[in-house]
Amino acid sequence: MTPAPSDRTTVRRLPERGVYERDVIDAILDEALICHVGFVHDGAPVVIPTIHARSGDTLYLHGSPASRMLRSMRRDDEVCVTVTLVDGIALARAPFHSSMNYRSVVLFGTPRIVDDPEEKREAFRVLTEHVTPGRWDDSRRPNDKEERATLVAAIAITEASAKVRTGPPEDDDEDYELPLWAGVIPLAVTAGEPIPDPRLRKGVSLPEYLVGYARRHLPSDV
Amino acid sequence: MTPAPSDRTTVRRLPERGVYERDVIDAILDEALICHVGFVHDGAPVVIPTIHARSGDTLYLHGSPASRMLRSMRRDDEVCVTVTLVDGIALARAPFHSSMNYRSVVLFGTPRIVDDPEEKREAFRVLTEHVTPGRWDDSRRPNDKEERATLVAAIAITEASAKVRTGPPEDDDEDYELPLWAGVIPLAVTAGEPIPDPRLRKGVSLPEYLVGYARRHLPSDV
Repeated sequence: MTPAPSDRTTVRRLPERGVYERDVIDAILDEALICHVGFVHDGAPVVIPTIHARSGDTLYLHGSPASRMLRSMRRDDEVCVTVTLVDGIALARAPFHSSMNYRSVVLFGTPRIVDDPEEKREAFRVLTEHVTPGRWDDSRRPNDKEERATLVAAIAITEASAKVRTGPPEDDDEDYELPLWAGVIPLAVTAGEPIPDPRLRKGVSLPEYLVGYARRHLPSDV
Repeated sequence: MTPAPSDRTTVRRLPERGVYERDVIDAILDEALICHVGFVHDGAPVVIPTIHARSGDTLYLHGSPASRMLRSMRRDDEVCVTVTLVDGIALARAPFHSSMNYRSVVLFGTPRIVDDPEEKREAFRVLTEHVTPGRWDDSRRPNDKEERATLVAAIAITEASAKVRTGPPEDDDEDYELPLWAGVIPLAVTAGEPIPDPRLRKGVSLPEYLVGYARRHLPSDV
């Protein structure tokens, strides 16, 4: 078993749920559409949702240079990036033992602002492909003005841990006799029928890569 | 229009997406199954997913007294609670203009540890009912040991803002002529078929309140 990379990434609450293997961490980062970024602003914590994308050992974030989040990154402040996939509700007979089934990753790091134009363009590509695989080659490339108007931050995936819960709820032994339903309500993010832009050019049909859109899924016994 | 309650809850990036009306904020808090709580630990931000529940003007969180999150709350540290509902992917012809459709709330506050036994029990009830409405009256009540083993924190909903994006993507005028698909891929959290606990007592069937489980939804034109 891979050990935790640092004291603060060590899962202490229910340590049996802690996972430190990079393939598990990567799969969760890749499946999650968005992350929540925590940073400190004027001494207080701020948490903002944003999209992310992984490329090898690097997690990319992007945004407006004026955003508080990216301004904090320009100051070399540390951030915490958390992604959470909710896989179900594990309903125990006792609320105390009820739980969520989930897969989450907590990543600490000091972002590096990406200045190299080639790496920046590659980050745009992986951010687009993270949300909609296949889209990059079927979209209008960013122009110079757009590239300047977007800040990209890179965080090395070195200090991360995952926490995973799967399976049925666990009750106190004496509660299994109670005439109460218990079990798991599986939950997933699912896509509806794509809604074409009202200004869609005539004759343009839904591209193959968007048909049956779904987030990649780890095999897991929810 | 309701003004922002503070400088830091004022939505600056795309201010037209900022909403400060409590009914909008409350509906987002109620629909979201989980939140992400940000706090400062040893000078660095930490973001942890957890369930929450609203009761009137109060947001309740709970957890183990030993968790870093609840220990930070015991120190009267400020926290930031963020909930995010992802409603779709708004795919523009240019990746620069692509966006998510979402409804999010950012809430700042200094949690109060709930010591009053009556309020604590009521918090347990609303936390259970937040996840699965109808469950509280159909479950085994927390015992003294369980009540002692759970810390409840209350945050007043006074400094909060919502950010909402709906509708189709918006491209640069000259890009509408491109032969590229654009539009919205709607996304939602959906429930699968409930999986009974392998140790379910014989003869116990799925209760009515769990049939067709779904999160409440704001009417919104994704």
